[in-house]
Amino acid sequence: MINLNNLPDEAALQKHRAQYPALQNKHYLNFGGQGCMATSSIEAIKQAYEYVQEHGPFSTKMFAWMQEQIDGVKILFAREFGGQAPYYALTQNATEGCNIILWGIDWREGDTLLTTDCEHNGVMKAAMQVSHRHKLKLAVCKIAHLQTDKEILEALSIAIAKKPRLLMLSHVLWNTGRVLPLQKIAEFCRDHNVKLLADGAQSAGVLPLNMDALKVDYYAITGHKWLGGPEGTGALYVAPEALEAIEPTFSGWRGAVFDSAGKPTGWLPAAARFEVATSAFPLLSGLSDAMQRHSQFATTEQRFQKIDRLTKSLKRSLLQLPDIDIIDDTGGSGLVSFYSRKADAATLLKKLESQNVILRTIPSPSCLRASIHYFSEAEIAKLIQGLS
Amino acid sequence: MINLNNLPDEAALQKHRAQYPALQNKHYLNFGGQGCMATSSIEAIKQAYEYVQEHGPFSTKMFAWMQEQIDGVKILFAREFGGQAPYYALTQNATEGCNIILWGIDWREGDTLLTTDCEHNGVMKAAMQVSHRHKLKLAVCKIAHLQTDKEILEALSIAIAKKPRLLMLSHVLWNTGRVLPLQKIAEFCRDHNVKLLADGAQSAGVLPLNMDALKVDYYAITGHKWLGGPEGTGALYVAPEALEAIEPTFSGWRGAVFDSAGKPTGWLPAAARFEVATSAFPLLSGLSDAMQRHSQFATTEQRFQKIDRLTKSLKRSLLQLPDIDIIDDTGGSGLVSFYSRKADAATLLKKLESQNVILRTIPSPSCLRASIHYFSEAEIAKLIQGLS
Repeated sequence: MINLNNLPDEAALQKHRAQYPALQNKHYLNFGGQGCMATSSIEAIKQAYEYVQEHGPFSTKMFAWMQEQIDGVKILFAREFGGQAPYYALTQNATEGCNIILWGIDWREGDTLLTTDCEHNGVMKAAMQVSHRHKLKLAVCKIAHLQTDKEILEALSIAIAKKPRLLMLSHVLWNTGRVLPLQKIAEFCRDHNVKLLADGAQSAGVLPLNMDALKVDYYAITGHKWLGGPEGTGALYVAPEALEAIEPTFSGWRGAVFDSAGKPTGWLPAAARFEVATSAFPLLSGLSDAMQRHSQFATTEQRFQKIDRLTKSLKRSLLQLPDIDIIDDTGGSGLVSFYSRKADAATLLKKLESQNVILRTIPSPSCLRASIHYFSEAEIAKLIQGLS
Repeated sequence: MINLNNLPDEAALQKHRAQYPALQNKHYLNFGGQGCMATSSIEAIKQAYEYVQEHGPFSTKMFAWMQEQIDGVKILFAREFGGQAPYYALTQNATEGCNIILWGIDWREGDTLLTTDCEHNGVMKAAMQVSHRHKLKLAVCKIAHLQTDKEILEALSIAIAKKPRLLMLSHVLWNTGRVLPLQKIAEFCRDHNVKLLADGAQSAGVLPLNMDALKVDYYAITGHKWLGGPEGTGALYVAPEALEAIEPTFSGWRGAVFDSAGKPTGWLPAAARFEVATSAFPLLSGLSDAMQRHSQFATTEQRFQKIDRLTKSLKRSLLQLPDIDIIDDTGGSGLVSFYSRKADAATLLKKLESQNVILRTIPSPSCLRASIHYFSEAEIAKLIQGLS
């Protein structure tokens, strides 16, 4: 029914959309803030909670179940994003994944942590805090004003050549929607023996990703945005050869091995060492359901092609409006940042919300951001209508 | 209906128990591993997920809702455990709370971290890791073999007088069930300017706690054991005067303040600074429901008196069995650790599981551990029957 060139037809799309309650009563364009969950994903969570109570909650059987849930989600991550399943650590969100790496390096006073001026403010706070506590130089490469990949690569290559210990940057910039040439950046990093951490909050579930091909050392993913999973789920991919460069910081029973007397004797072999203790395992059923639902509708490549097409189409439409301009006019990451020459972002947000068109403001550059998923045709039309 | 001396009657107890599916099909005595959730708590989670989808998921309205959920749970914590609501940071579990403190101190090489030989192995792993990375002395005060509070206080006071930077210990020992004289220990620590972190995994929801009276600096709580909330919820209490001694480690948008351009400018005023980013907010509805359900049935003091009585009664019954001995014969914390002189713990666990009596083994001292909640009469009878 589905081939690489053709997405399911309009009827199939409508049937698919009908599974998402968030899409039924508003024009939702905030997947980069939080994605929408299918009814079946919420039901899967409820059933998992019920299952836990029926067979446990704490019993030999449930301990095995818990491990199956963890392993199952990691297999889904590896299937969707490449790499080997055990090299995914489960996290609550992308920020936690970034923190695991930021605090996991054996920093020495005076080391440099390199990042960019387009990182999410929360992750930036973590970078500032690790720099403060470990007395690092926090170098911020300015890329916000650059127009082309060539310029960005040039700016980053100069900064990377100064040999920071770690470069942390987003694969898709949360403020402008620009996709960074990550594979090339990873090459530069390898050439200079610089570890690379990618914040994948806005790329996982949008771009086709292959950890083996990208060759980044660390890649932080969240489950609750473009993947449509529940808030509180995510993963950190750790490349096998970059595992030993990171020490666990927050740690506990889930990441460690113990002798028969319960004495900690070491870490679990792969990325599970970065997991701490009991977390909301039943949510993993919701995340699995969400990921499988998207996969069953269309391949990652098909979904991305559609997002790319819709994003470009929205950008074209926005540029035809008299007072609107867009921040970045390159390809389609799903994020479209724009502003009005006549109204500030907060005012425009309110105006759109009053028409039930839901998006968000971005503080820097001050703008509005629409997130376009592969099924967002109808909402794009409403947004354009609302701005006209 | 309820007064301080009288618990609700048998009919009310049976009606209450009927709300917990985990109690219906097995003889469950593992609250110290994971507590059982009421049907209404699971339903509350589902409804919260649905609410998020209906009104968001990501919108101005839902951001306010999220903050209300967070604040609401903190108010419940403060009502149940004392202290001021803003001095509770939400966590996923007690281990995470301990990690926040362990990694939050401005350690200097050679500092001492003091703990005991009765800590949970996961928390111990965290203590070992922070000691390893910060080149600390990890001092382990031996209390496992001591019989009286006096002996324990003596051993601890000698160790505290050596001025470690931090003492981390459990309020209720997970392996023996012993309640430590925490208020007195806190006094010793204040006298020597030693910060005190209590692991409350086995005390919150069992003992009546008052943070103001206990005067510990930091107290880590989990929601998924004795409180009957969902796995993945918990809190860390930080005494106001001990707040500034801890720097955030893992950090992000939830704990920080930003200027209008999104630039991080500082931390939130109280314990919220230790919260990182998006977590499973809908679970807070489940935790609230769980805590309120227990409170509505009986006061904390009433529930504790009942736990104490049942624990002591189980201990007496166990001592009457020919081959069984108990580890600790002091008061009632809800945890009863025992062993058979004829069978190893794993064998006995299997035998009891075959009779649908669910408890767990403890690695050191090698034993079985039964967790007794305030409604566990029937299960106690089954356990004794199973051992006879």
